[in-house]
Amino acid sequence: MSTTGRQLFTTLEKDGTLTVEIAETSFADPTGNQVLVKMEAAPINPSDLAILTGAADFENAEYSRGKVVANMPEPFNSGQKARHGQRLPAGNEGAGTVVATGDSDMPKALMGQRVACVPGSAYAEYAVADANMCLPLGDYSAEDGASSFVNPMTALGFVENAKMDGQKAILHTVGASNLGLMLNRICQEDGMGLVNIVRKQEQVDLLKEAGAEWIVNSSDDDFVEQLKAAIDATDAFYGFDPIGGGKMVDHCFKAMEQVASAKMSEYSRYGSNQQKRMFIYGRLDMGATTLTPSYGFGWTLSGWLLTPFLQSAGMETVMRMRKRVLDNLTTTFASNYKSKVSLEGMLEKDAILDYRRMKTGEKYLVTPQA
Amino acid sequence: MSTTGRQLFTTLEKDGTLTVEIAETSFADPTGNQVLVKMEAAPINPSDLAILTGAADFENAEYSRGKVVANMPEPFNSGQKARHGQRLPAGNEGAGTVVATGDSDMPKALMGQRVACVPGSAYAEYAVADANMCLPLGDYSAEDGASSFVNPMTALGFVENAKMDGQKAILHTVGASNLGLMLNRICQEDGMGLVNIVRKQEQVDLLKEAGAEWIVNSSDDDFVEQLKAAIDATDAFYGFDPIGGGKMVDHCFKAMEQVASAKMSEYSRYGSNQQKRMFIYGRLDMGATTLTPSYGFGWTLSGWLLTPFLQSAGMETVMRMRKRVLDNLTTTFASNYKSKVSLEGMLEKDAILDYRRMKTGEKYLVTPQA
Repeated sequence: MSTTGRQLFTTLEKDGTLTVEIAETSFADPTGNQVLVKMEAAPINPSDLAILTGAADFENAEYSRGKVVANMPEPFNSGQKARHGQRLPAGNEGAGTVVATGDSDMPKALMGQRVACVPGSAYAEYAVADANMCLPLGDYSAEDGASSFVNPMTALGFVENAKMDGQKAILHTVGASNLGLMLNRICQEDGMGLVNIVRKQEQVDLLKEAGAEWIVNSSDDDFVEQLKAAIDATDAFYGFDPIGGGKMVDHCFKAMEQVASAKMSEYSRYGSNQQKRMFIYGRLDMGATTLTPSYGFGWTLSGWLLTPFLQSAGMETVMRMRKRVLDNLTTTFASNYKSKVSLEGMLEKDAILDYRRMKTGEKYLVTPQA
Repeated sequence: MSTTGRQLFTTLEKDGTLTVEIAETSFADPTGNQVLVKMEAAPINPSDLAILTGAADFENAEYSRGKVVANMPEPFNSGQKARHGQRLPAGNEGAGTVVATGDSDMPKALMGQRVACVPGSAYAEYAVADANMCLPLGDYSAEDGASSFVNPMTALGFVENAKMDGQKAILHTVGASNLGLMLNRICQEDGMGLVNIVRKQEQVDLLKEAGAEWIVNSSDDDFVEQLKAAIDATDAFYGFDPIGGGKMVDHCFKAMEQVASAKMSEYSRYGSNQQKRMFIYGRLDMGATTLTPSYGFGWTLSGWLLTPFLQSAGMETVMRMRKRVLDNLTTTFASNYKSKVSLEGMLEKDAILDYRRMKTGEKYLVTPQA
């Protein structure tokens, strides 16, 4: 016995042809610790787009119902040669109802329940998920629970990571994103300082209304001065950036160093002793990251990913974080969506061109049963 | 009572005028844990050049005996505004004879001895140094001992740091430098794997003769393939780079990731799980560091400086390292010099233009008593 239904697949060929399509497929029966979830809602996060659309040219793609064929330019095609020829699912997270389970006790206890899950194949009518990662949603709707993992655990992960490293403030380079607004609420609850960088006055207003204390507008002429003042007031020498490419990380390191060196009593050719730490957790800008020699040698830049962080944090911390998310799903950890689309609707030109821009606060929700 | 003698000073004015000059000065009597050392030999290390010459234009400078006035271009002048107007000494390390001491027991025991020291003002006839950092040289000459701190402790520091982080191999991007040759000898003694990157065939030959196993020539057409093969054979996912600017760090991260991902059984959009670590410990290239999005999120890049490393390693480790250096000063930790110059000779046009190029294996030694 197996279940059949529609699922999204994305395939990149060696010649750079990217095919994204909805296809009828059969889902294997769950075994062991697995559950089969009838998917009702799944967000399109920036972290999904890397595999879903990548840097392909969707302006000039061929569109037909439930299918789009686009060209992946260089160097992005060669850069992904490890996936050439592989037909991959997509959709990190979502929510739905458990309709079948493996033999273990934990999955059995979830039978019939609405859960949030992290299958990695959420853009589908059904998905096989690990029961350990399922969150029973109780009275919450699938839409409420669809984004309960990636953004909430990432924002909470930043705060947990900062606490582990003895920090009392965080700098975030996209303050008005869904994740940024969540981080703002968490930091207020936990008494963690937060410097929010945004690009527009309306985002300044939005964050102000949300009670944020330090908001820096990178479009203002005195951006650098604003940033230095906020770092000076909060001691935010520890920041997270999802842009990746360009000069944002460099701006942050420079401002941190200038704040620290202004407090030094004598000149050091090697820069201040203040350790400066930045993490890149996304690649909204696929260009190169540029680091100038302007802040000595007391700095560290790392990539940051949720899964390795959760592994290093340990199960107890992860369970505590999950409980906090569930307890505050429609408040602290609420997500907002600009549009809802069906599986086929995901692959329409207007939709793709809109959601792949990853504009702040304009997230899409996929409803696979529609 | 105070001692007088000549000393080098470097002063950068707000308008970008850099004056480097030898001036008669009086040296304060040592107090507490200090010693006064009559300096006999001091190397010009790349780490000295940052403050000594910086990026100033010495082609078109005004030269007179014991004095040179040059222009510091932007953005380097503004980048050093913390030193504007300050008359700074230079010369991190050197060797000479202790001629006066403070009242503490340790400095008193050094009276009359030849020592290596780290005064930060070694380009002078006399220098006040911390007795804790002095190394009694016994029968070694001042020339033998002049470079006993910066390069030996840095090269040893890399190996100590790698061991602390559980690594079994190191990648070094300037294999044929004085420091690189030292690192090669240390790694052989300690059984630590080492991948040496060099730029010329003669440097390949030099390292081969020194028994190096993995030498990669960045001027060869198959540089990337050579680098990947060496990383694959040694597991060198941990590297040190004194170039800083440009793409060398990016090349290393890319090669590390390609080696790691070739071993993965299935495609991951986030890159391999292999942690990749690079340290920038110098700025031979003052251009920007460029990092492309080609190796996922499992990487960390830091600045690396000797002093903070020694502080974090602790006194016991530092003493063990110092003893190893002293015991092997003319073998494992030997330095070679291209030229010897007097204090005034340091400021002659031919000399400055030559040593500021920081060419591999062409180090200068200053002899302040000449």
